[in-house]
Amino acid sequence: MANEQEIRAQIAGLEAELAALKAQLPPPVSPLAPESGFPDLPVIDGVRFSTAAAAVKYAGRPDVMLAEIAPGAQVAAVFTRSTTRAAPVLRCEESLAKHVDNPDDRSGFAILVNSGNANAFTGGRGFESVDALRDRVGAELSIAPEHVFTSSTGVIGEPLPHGRIADKVAELAAGLDAGGAADAARAIMTTDTFAKGATASVDLGGTVQIAGFAKGSGMIAPDMATMLAYIFTDARIAQNVLQQVLWLENAGSFNCITVDSDTSTSDTLILAATGRAKMEPITDFADPRVRAFRLALRRVMDDLSQQVARDGEGATKLIEVRVTGANADGPAHRIAMAIANSPLVKTAVAGEDPNWGRVVMAIGKAGERADRDRISIRFGDILVAENGWVSAEYTEAAGAAYMKNDHIVIAVDIGLDNGKATVWTCDLTHQYITINADYRS
Amino acid sequence: MANEQEIRAQIAGLEAELAALKAQLPPPVSPLAPESGFPDLPVIDGVRFSTAAAAVKYAGRPDVMLAEIAPGAQVAAVFTRSTTRAAPVLRCEESLAKHVDNPDDRSGFAILVNSGNANAFTGGRGFESVDALRDRVGAELSIAPEHVFTSSTGVIGEPLPHGRIADKVAELAAGLDAGGAADAARAIMTTDTFAKGATASVDLGGTVQIAGFAKGSGMIAPDMATMLAYIFTDARIAQNVLQQVLWLENAGSFNCITVDSDTSTSDTLILAATGRAKMEPITDFADPRVRAFRLALRRVMDDLSQQVARDGEGATKLIEVRVTGANADGPAHRIAMAIANSPLVKTAVAGEDPNWGRVVMAIGKAGERADRDRISIRFGDILVAENGWVSAEYTEAAGAAYMKNDHIVIAVDIGLDNGKATVWTCDLTHQYITINADYRS
Repeated sequence: MANEQEIRAQIAGLEAELAALKAQLPPPVSPLAPESGFPDLPVIDGVRFSTAAAAVKYAGRPDVMLAEIAPGAQVAAVFTRSTTRAAPVLRCEESLAKHVDNPDDRSGFAILVNSGNANAFTGGRGFESVDALRDRVGAELSIAPEHVFTSSTGVIGEPLPHGRIADKVAELAAGLDAGGAADAARAIMTTDTFAKGATASVDLGGTVQIAGFAKGSGMIAPDMATMLAYIFTDARIAQNVLQQVLWLENAGSFNCITVDSDTSTSDTLILAATGRAKMEPITDFADPRVRAFRLALRRVMDDLSQQVARDGEGATKLIEVRVTGANADGPAHRIAMAIANSPLVKTAVAGEDPNWGRVVMAIGKAGERADRDRISIRFGDILVAENGWVSAEYTEAAGAAYMKNDHIVIAVDIGLDNGKATVWTCDLTHQYITINADYRS
Repeated sequence: MANEQEIRAQIAGLEAELAALKAQLPPPVSPLAPESGFPDLPVIDGVRFSTAAAAVKYAGRPDVMLAEIAPGAQVAAVFTRSTTRAAPVLRCEESLAKHVDNPDDRSGFAILVNSGNANAFTGGRGFESVDALRDRVGAELSIAPEHVFTSSTGVIGEPLPHGRIADKVAELAAGLDAGGAADAARAIMTTDTFAKGATASVDLGGTVQIAGFAKGSGMIAPDMATMLAYIFTDARIAQNVLQQVLWLENAGSFNCITVDSDTSTSDTLILAATGRAKMEPITDFADPRVRAFRLALRRVMDDLSQQVARDGEGATKLIEVRVTGANADGPAHRIAMAIANSPLVKTAVAGEDPNWGRVVMAIGKAGERADRDRISIRFGDILVAENGWVSAEYTEAAGAAYMKNDHIVIAVDIGLDNGKATVWTCDLTHQYITINADYRS
């Protein structure tokens, strides 16, 4: 078949030409990035940021950020539940436990984060790296080493060249700036195509500001916190209340996104409250102002977590999966995740194919109670299926037109009880393969 | 940035040229297809096959197969556990239950299978289609309609145009041929790139033949049986023994493969034993010959199930994940599946990247007991990681060279106890996206 060989040779030539052309283009930005760009984050009284280029892995760009949190602050955090979590996460857990036990220790905190290397599965050497960096930052900022939270994100299994970061700590300390949050958000990016920030303010008998940023694009299926996210507020609030609020709001925000069903070894979410706002302190979860604080914090957390889904590797569409009518909220969450993690659902959305049969398949594999004849499925407002079959009013043309949107809502009612959950994900495209079949080279 | 626009225009032109060239090529066959092609299946005394082109969805190719199983046979089967399983599966379950209750009913059986339409989530109309076909085949072959097992594979949610199949039943009956298994295997293919067959023989006091075929390429994460597989033997064996043997061997074969973590609504595995072999009948599971029969059957089931993994949509590499040292077999299986279903592990293999850090990540997310410092990881015979870190003897060059193979073994020892499991999957490539972002058009 000489003709076939000729065609294959032509294809190989064209593909080489294409690759050369694509290499000349600037790095792509997710088409789902917020059109308004990175938000104008307010200064949080008591927090300063700094960045440096330590060449941990990436050359010629800032890859380390330092946040200094002034004395008087409280810190809350949640971390990945991975059984192979990274050394920095394990040390952060120890620090948090100490802080919980000593909430009246009013000395300051710091957060040091590098991109390019996760310091995960690096044996005893992983702890040595973390300890060296904590000691160095603690000495520079005159705080206890255990008050330095560190995170690392990037390749797993390679030793962290922590000396390169330690060498930059003096420079980082000298550069601390209350307005440095946007640069800090950029310094911690890996395969992210845009920096992710969010802010809210709330009146708690005095105006309180909340500002945060996050990174994450792949290995996203948080099982407690997610990737890396740092949120700061000037609220005056006790540690035990702060921790409880963070845990509760995390369950409905970061724990409800998935890009690829893969859970990171490094997921870390830290919330620091400086206590500088002019307000009476909140010392009890029953304080009526907790609800207002939770709502404001949740706006920031929803915004950040959905930005992570929008920057899912290769994403061209944001997918919101709403499940109602399950026999409880837990089953609803698991059904929603089965749909959101289905490669066949995600590729159908990428292909703008209203292939609701794949949604049926994903419900069926979730392992939760469901009765085929009670399920209804909607794409946006369009009723697609009910009573065990396609809806009489559904037309393929209407479904296909809806799939052109870049925010797709898949709404499933199981028809059994009141359990409900909403999760966010993105479509699965060629670009995900391109990014991940060539990550380390 | 006029230059960027020019480059993008050139890229668009080249991509159109490429698409036109690729359309001229013959449909690709998986590079992992057995080099020996479809095996020479022995005739199973008492079974005849036939195929027809009914244009259920595909035009110009056989898309229906009929297998006739002579009086005196016993049938065993396992089916998907999906809660949204298809009408043919539900009817097959009823038929099997009746057969189990009446093992002395020695009238014959038939199996009718179509490709192109799964008759799943088609409401009451789905049962009407199955019943019409069972009646038609039963009348033509003079057997009870409940003795006709039907399967349907293809798009979910569209009504099965069963009239087109019913119109071919007389032609199918007229064409029945003991040597027709290879054509039958081809007729039930959907996105499969090659037909899958396997055979074994065993001495049970008389030579017994086993021959079977399967289809499956995507939506592969069987949770009991898998996609469609039909195995025939002339063994003389009681139904209760046959069913128990099938169930046991299924657990270690079809239930240990995954292409994309998506479980089909139609998974069906049927084993028919015609009893025509010259041997004393097996009537008890304690019969010492059961072990020999199981081993032979397992060879056929392993062969077929691994062929399904080899034909995973877009597959370029077969991945074998061996987990040992877990605290029990169940946890070992779940850890192996977490690795086998990880998009990040699968894309790394596609990119020939020995990215063992992603294996660590997948172990960590499995939700099973694991201690980072006791885990060891091998790629083939190469010790990659142990004692919580990269092995002293490991070199990236050795790992990269190993990844060039088209059969990749990822061996993980958890270091806790004796639990073990092996599962098979394939890599995740651009071709999976291409196939599934454009399935229905």
